[in-house]
Amino acid sequence: MGLSRRRVLGATGAGALGLAGAGAGGWALGRTDDAPATADRGRFAFHGTHQAGIVTPAQDRLHFASFDVTATSREDLIGLLRTWTAAAAEMTRGAQVGGDAPEPYDAPPSDTGEALGLPPSGLTLTFGFGPTLFTKEGEDRFGLAERQPAGLQTLPHFPADALRPERSGGDLCVQACADDPQVAVHAIRNLSRLAFGTAVLRWSQLGFGRTSSTTRSQSTPRNLFGFKDGTANIKAEDTPEIDRFVWVRPEDDPDAEWLAGGSYLVARRINMRIEQWDSTSLSEQEAVVGRDRTAGAPLSGGTEHTDPDFSRRGSAGPLIPVDAHVRLAHPAQNRGVQLLRRGYNFTDGNDELGRLDAGLFFIAFVRDPVTGYVPMQNQLSKSDAMMEYLQHTGSALFAVPPGVQPGHYLGQSLFT
Amino acid sequence: MGLSRRRVLGATGAGALGLAGAGAGGWALGRTDDAPATADRGRFAFHGTHQAGIVTPAQDRLHFASFDVTATSREDLIGLLRTWTAAAAEMTRGAQVGGDAPEPYDAPPSDTGEALGLPPSGLTLTFGFGPTLFTKEGEDRFGLAERQPAGLQTLPHFPADALRPERSGGDLCVQACADDPQVAVHAIRNLSRLAFGTAVLRWSQLGFGRTSSTTRSQSTPRNLFGFKDGTANIKAEDTPEIDRFVWVRPEDDPDAEWLAGGSYLVARRINMRIEQWDSTSLSEQEAVVGRDRTAGAPLSGGTEHTDPDFSRRGSAGPLIPVDAHVRLAHPAQNRGVQLLRRGYNFTDGNDELGRLDAGLFFIAFVRDPVTGYVPMQNQLSKSDAMMEYLQHTGSALFAVPPGVQPGHYLGQSLFT
Repeated sequence: MGLSRRRVLGATGAGALGLAGAGAGGWALGRTDDAPATADRGRFAFHGTHQAGIVTPAQDRLHFASFDVTATSREDLIGLLRTWTAAAAEMTRGAQVGGDAPEPYDAPPSDTGEALGLPPSGLTLTFGFGPTLFTKEGEDRFGLAERQPAGLQTLPHFPADALRPERSGGDLCVQACADDPQVAVHAIRNLSRLAFGTAVLRWSQLGFGRTSSTTRSQSTPRNLFGFKDGTANIKAEDTPEIDRFVWVRPEDDPDAEWLAGGSYLVARRINMRIEQWDSTSLSEQEAVVGRDRTAGAPLSGGTEHTDPDFSRRGSAGPLIPVDAHVRLAHPAQNRGVQLLRRGYNFTDGNDELGRLDAGLFFIAFVRDPVTGYVPMQNQLSKSDAMMEYLQHTGSALFAVPPGVQPGHYLGQSLFT
Repeated sequence: MGLSRRRVLGATGAGALGLAGAGAGGWALGRTDDAPATADRGRFAFHGTHQAGIVTPAQDRLHFASFDVTATSREDLIGLLRTWTAAAAEMTRGAQVGGDAPEPYDAPPSDTGEALGLPPSGLTLTFGFGPTLFTKEGEDRFGLAERQPAGLQTLPHFPADALRPERSGGDLCVQACADDPQVAVHAIRNLSRLAFGTAVLRWSQLGFGRTSSTTRSQSTPRNLFGFKDGTANIKAEDTPEIDRFVWVRPEDDPDAEWLAGGSYLVARRINMRIEQWDSTSLSEQEAVVGRDRTAGAPLSGGTEHTDPDFSRRGSAGPLIPVDAHVRLAHPAQNRGVQLLRRGYNFTDGNDELGRLDAGLFFIAFVRDPVTGYVPMQNQLSKSDAMMEYLQHTGSALFAVPPGVQPGHYLGQSLFT
């Protein structure tokens, strides 16, 4: 029998957590010895230098949530972060919220129960702070304004943006990733419940298929255009690139040293014009992407992981067109900038004309959004041939505090 | 390397299909020998006496779609059913739509491609005909009015129904179930694309966790109330009950002999008042359900699969309250009627007040909705204590034609 979310797990869970925590450098903590022998990936340590869910091998499913803080005191905000810290540590090790104490019978249960009996399923919970947590309509609600990182501003309007406010922004975010969607949904629901009276769900997004591999052992998945996505993604094994492009350093921002060891999370809800794409010829689709569909090789030749040769020309011009997505998103066209992408496919029903409300929920972790994301997105929004088939409908930016040490709470460095 | 959705699969796929088809009595065809050694369940035969996806062991994920036919000729409708038949046979064996021919390069691809490289993932596609396919606003669009089954009428209004038209009804339905949501979404998207000009998506619903076990080897999953759901479900192994309560017989309806070997599919989108439930005490929750939360045992004692003893009393009255869900839904309170349930949990974001739009997408297969569903739902809607926490927001009924024989098309018996 596999490890499951039972109360008796308490002691075992804590032991295994210690074990995993010993190697908590940040990524690929992998299975613990008693993890179930299924497709499930076991447990990832909650505590560590960095938060889990960034360079962790991308899990299959996502539930992302953005919250608005309704409380007005700094103490209430800290209280919420303490409560979330305890609950996140419990849920990621496969336990119930509330730990191992018996449920009170004449009070609401401390855990909503729908993950009882399910294994940890590789759950990671990654928390972030939005710009409005620091200042909102000019108001410094929580005494944090002076410590707002310079890079943490609402993202600028990009050409062709069609953002919906109810799918954008937020004071706090939680990215829940797991191999079982019920485990991810359970986590967001319990965090949302624990926030009652302090913060309220602003928007949330389910993702059903990862669109990026974040380690070399993962194959490249396909997005809803049918193409492999994230071939050129930074991988967890690329330590120099991770250090250079993902983790914030103490010297990056003198006003926000608290963010050192953290990162920035860019979230973009990108709707795909599915029906329009599906009526486009394969040759046009490949020209738009700049890769062939079956293998994912660049149109300049080779195999999936061959570097694109942007200079190579055929009789009709460059083999990779000047407005191909792969060209405009490539580090060579972006001053060497690289992203750690961790996005998911989504499908949210259909509109009244029968068109699928579907696309890519883009998530990237970057050391500096000002240099590491905004210029690239400006270029893509202006010139990428793919924009004809895309519509950005949601947008948010969050500062992701560093990992939590045992006995501390999430983002504690911001408040001390 | 596991079996994957590659073009080279063509011959192998056809061979394996034949093999599986040999045992096509209807259920539990299980893995084929060359299925991948992962959690994936392999392939289920498309052809057979009954459609797959009814007594097939419930897969983990759902994409359900309802379509309105926009074409006005019987020939166009038959053409769509022929096209869907071919595509469904291809996709369920793990191939691309269009089979093994090379994709045309200067035309839109015959398959949208996002399942390329993924295994069949236990995909089943189950098709149904809504009442409006036979008569719509008094009009007999396709010459089918005389063959409308007596049981195929829009479901009556039940007490407390809050149905939204854009989540209800439809001329045609497709239930796509798979262990990988990307495979289920791929199937609905391709069927929707193939319907272009003939039928248009009316509504669709993703489900992320099955709420019923349909074979004895499956453990009972939990719904979003945190309780085990479907303990008393008919199981595929219960052949006498399946024959009695699921499959339509030739003598059931002289006007609709074409439906023999088929069934009726009841779909209900049941929103749960999550926040209200979560603030209710465990004792109240258990009284509402009539079972204990941890083990799923009836409050009259025993273990999960112990029969509830409705007569057993404690000091405060019956141990299972008179308005408990388990009592009112039990066959003993419903003239012995049993359902084959095959529902899924869903979460579709949140409303403007931050409340989760979540619940249970109820699916049941019944031999006769008039006797096998409507009275029970009336009783539940009127008296079930759980109704305080539920809101039915979508509703549909479809006649599910029998299985498809090789060389035939879906629902052919209706048109000949």
